[in-house]
Amino acid sequence: MSTKKSGKSSLTALRNAVCRANIELYKRGLAHFTFGNASGIDRERGLVVIKPSGVPYSKLTPANLVMTDLDGNIVSSKLKPSSDLPTHLVLYKAFKDIGGVAHTHSQYATAWAQAWREIPCLGTTHADYFDGSVPITRAMDRAEIVADYEANTGKAIVRRFEGLDPLKRPGVLVGAHAPFAWGRDVAAAVEMAAIIEEVATLAHHTIAVNPNVQPIPDVLREKHFNRKHGPGAYYGQR
Amino acid sequence: MSTKKSGKSSLTALRNAVCRANIELYKRGLAHFTFGNASGIDRERGLVVIKPSGVPYSKLTPANLVMTDLDGNIVSSKLKPSSDLPTHLVLYKAFKDIGGVAHTHSQYATAWAQAWREIPCLGTTHADYFDGSVPITRAMDRAEIVADYEANTGKAIVRRFEGLDPLKRPGVLVGAHAPFAWGRDVAAAVEMAAIIEEVATLAHHTIAVNPNVQPIPDVLREKHFNRKHGPGAYYGQR
Amino acid sequence: MSTKKSGKSSLTALRNAVCRANIELYKRGLAHFTFGNASGIDRERGLVVIKPSGVPYSKLTPANLVMTDLDGNIVSSKLKPSSDLPTHLVLYKAFKDIGGVAHTHSQYATAWAQAWREIPCLGTTHADYFDGSVPITRAMDRAEIVADYEANTGKAIVRRFEGLDPLKRPGVLVGAHAPFAWGRDVAAAVEMAAIIEEVATLAHHTIAVNPNVQPIPDVLREKHFNRKHGPGAYYGQR
Amino acid sequence: MSTKKSGKSSLTALRNAVCRANIELYKRGLAHFTFGNASGIDRERGLVVIKPSGVPYSKLTPANLVMTDLDGNIVSSKLKPSSDLPTHLVLYKAFKDIGGVAHTHSQYATAWAQAWREIPCLGTTHADYFDGSVPITRAMDRAEIVADYEANTGKAIVRRFEGLDPLKRPGVLVGAHAPFAWGRDVAAAVEMAAIIEEVATLAHHTIAVNPNVQPIPDVLREKHFNRKHGPGAYYGQR
Repeated sequence: MSTKKSGKSSLTALRNAVCRANIELYKRGLAHFTFGNASGIDRERGLVVIKPSGVPYSKLTPANLVMTDLDGNIVSSKLKPSSDLPTHLVLYKAFKDIGGVAHTHSQYATAWAQAWREIPCLGTTHADYFDGSVPITRAMDRAEIVADYEANTGKAIVRRFEGLDPLKRPGVLVGAHAPFAWGRDVAAAVEMAAIIEEVATLAHHTIAVNPNVQPIPDVLREKHFNRKHGPGAYYGQR
Repeated sequence: MSTKKSGKSSLTALRNAVCRANIELYKRGLAHFTFGNASGIDRERGLVVIKPSGVPYSKLTPANLVMTDLDGNIVSSKLKPSSDLPTHLVLYKAFKDIGGVAHTHSQYATAWAQAWREIPCLGTTHADYFDGSVPITRAMDRAEIVADYEANTGKAIVRRFEGLDPLKRPGVLVGAHAPFAWGRDVAAAVEMAAIIEEVATLAHHTIAVNPNVQPIPDVLREKHFNRKHGPGAYYGQR
Repeated sequence: MSTKKSGKSSLTALRNAVCRANIELYKRGLAHFTFGNASGIDRERGLVVIKPSGVPYSKLTPANLVMTDLDGNIVSSKLKPSSDLPTHLVLYKAFKDIGGVAHTHSQYATAWAQAWREIPCLGTTHADYFDGSVPITRAMDRAEIVADYEANTGKAIVRRFEGLDPLKRPGVLVGAHAPFAWGRDVAAAVEMAAIIEEVATLAHHTIAVNPNVQPIPDVLREKHFNRKHGPGAYYGQR
Repeated sequence: MSTKKSGKSSLTALRNAVCRANIELYKRGLAHFTFGNASGIDRERGLVVIKPSGVPYSKLTPANLVMTDLDGNIVSSKLKPSSDLPTHLVLYKAFKDIGGVAHTHSQYATAWAQAWREIPCLGTTHADYFDGSVPITRAMDRAEIVADYEANTGKAIVRRFEGLDPLKRPGVLVGAHAPFAWGRDVAAAVEMAAIIEEVATLAHHTIAVNPNVQPIPDVLREKHFNRKHGPGAYYGQR
């Protein structure tokens, strides 16, 4: 523990990582306009760093990101946080092992969300990252929409993950809205947002070629997921 | 009122803004070739600045834009105005609160226009900007096409907006033609032209995944539109 | 006539224009790999300049283009001409007013050609350039394919244009193959190749939104074509 | 034989070519993330050079590529080879005339693979490179997936090519997975991976325009394939 970073330098590193990650969302074409935001958490201190609301990606700096506690109280910022902050906070509270969250309106993933269809696991590219479909939330009712809408969005995600391991399915579609992704840290969350767009694109093109295509067999899905993520993983330089 | 810009400097600013906006149309891929034009109005003086007809975007300068009054009389220009000028003028006369108009042939929005379908509000990205569908005009008859075609295009738009607030639905599809967008100023009009292409793209991909998808419920659409544009808006740094 | 360029300088200008046009095909994404070629003709001398066969666009220079007469006899070149040269020559002989031809495998236009469907005039973007559909040739029979295939491709195009004005429909789809475009000079031919890809793209996206869409009425098509190209044209700076 | 390169310089040339080819996969947009790999073989020495597993394309150098023998024994490397190495090795053993293999998850080709449909020869662009469809493998059974999965993938490809000439159909779709391509050397294999994506894209757009389209007649397919690759080939500068 003596090698642990000081509080100040660790939070600086988090600000830097979250800033880079938000800019990456834009550079990869995942977040046009100001659609999208990424956050990271310092679990030890219970502090979250997130994009400010409505600020163009070209104006982001580590210093103008917003830091809050897990209840959304602002620790230090002249700017308001992303309006989606309450969704991020619900995810951090429910999914204890995640360190970053990314939200985009990337085009193909958003199309599946608007179509109210989960993204089925149609091939090994998908299975390399998701041990099953990319799930979709159920529709929220009037009461959930009218008050505490953003927190209720998070709760709808958490309900959908009852019985699922959020690190084996590191993302979700919010119906009629768009995807959320997560990971061990904010960079992994952004990577996963890009992967979700990739598998959404592949699936979109696939059903155009064969509308009746079925998900791949469990044995093939598990083979691919586990050769990357299982105990006997042999992909990469591990 | 003493801080009001002099007439000359205010018109110079308008020329600069309209020039930037037209170039932006091209740079964002909304207007290929010479398909597209943007204009802005000085309401106090009743003067409109618009792109000259058929001039490539790379040759545009503030000085070679065309300035006219609201009846289309040229105030000062060696070049002819965009042939779509009469459409812009009808919109400025009918929609008193708009300060800029943008016309493009952006690909997905044009596809919906050619398909004679309004763009339904299928998700929250759309609802963030439009409090309903992106409407489409009815077909013009022979007489409307043969004479005063461009002015009649404007009138077809205005008729379609009877009972609608043009700032809550800041754009339209002209059937068999392409979109027009508008806003408080010319920059906002161009931004809205880009948004219309984005929602047209999302809707195109969505109906491929689920041809029977329905518009989102009113309560969700109003929630999103109002959190950005309503009296209690809480999106952005307001 | 005294201002006419000398033979040498006029042929140099033609080589330069054809070189630029071929490179433009590549830069605009109309011709991937070595799929595509453009040529220009000096009508007075009956000489045609065309891309050499299978040479990458990055290696093209005015000097390594191939010059032939209208029967395909090489005037001066160390390289072989594009294998599509005989198609170009048939077009130059049949369509007396054209000065340039461009052939691409651009993606959406090629899709319509492979689908054996002409591109219907679905909107005003199309009508601004084509006074009707982009026509498609009929299938060639075994004899036409086995011998003189490329010349027979040209003849199939010419047959399709019986009764049509090639300057009012400045391009065609060769069924199962890809588009050819033409114009007053080689730059206009390349511009038209780009326009054909644009209208093919729009039409592809349109029929996805409405499979039963019909061509626009004649009166609207003629209005748009003639405001750009008719005797009373009022588009552009004429 | 006296002009033969020394063993050392020839292996250096192979490392350089394989490095360039892998980077090319990425630059052409054929391999996003770390999805994709290319290898080359020195037939005389029986040595294969391949991308290391999970290493980003931006970090590749000739020196950090992995060299193995035809049984997969590592000759010299600190890094693990691509997990797809056994597939490459099976192809090298079965197809004696190929010198390079490329594997991608390019989007449209992967869509056809996920849709479990071979890519039919719908036009001359396709026929210029493939003397028939781009074939697809049959589904692998549980035993083939659970053990020696990657080698079994290669065997599934080889089985599909019984009776086919791998140089007349220089690539394949692995069902539910993605394409493999090959050629006389690694550069040709990458070129063919790009061609497969191109014809997959064209075919995808074609069936959207005409779902009932049929493959082109044999005579036309053979004409195009042979004018480029047959004994009397007349395309290019041969």
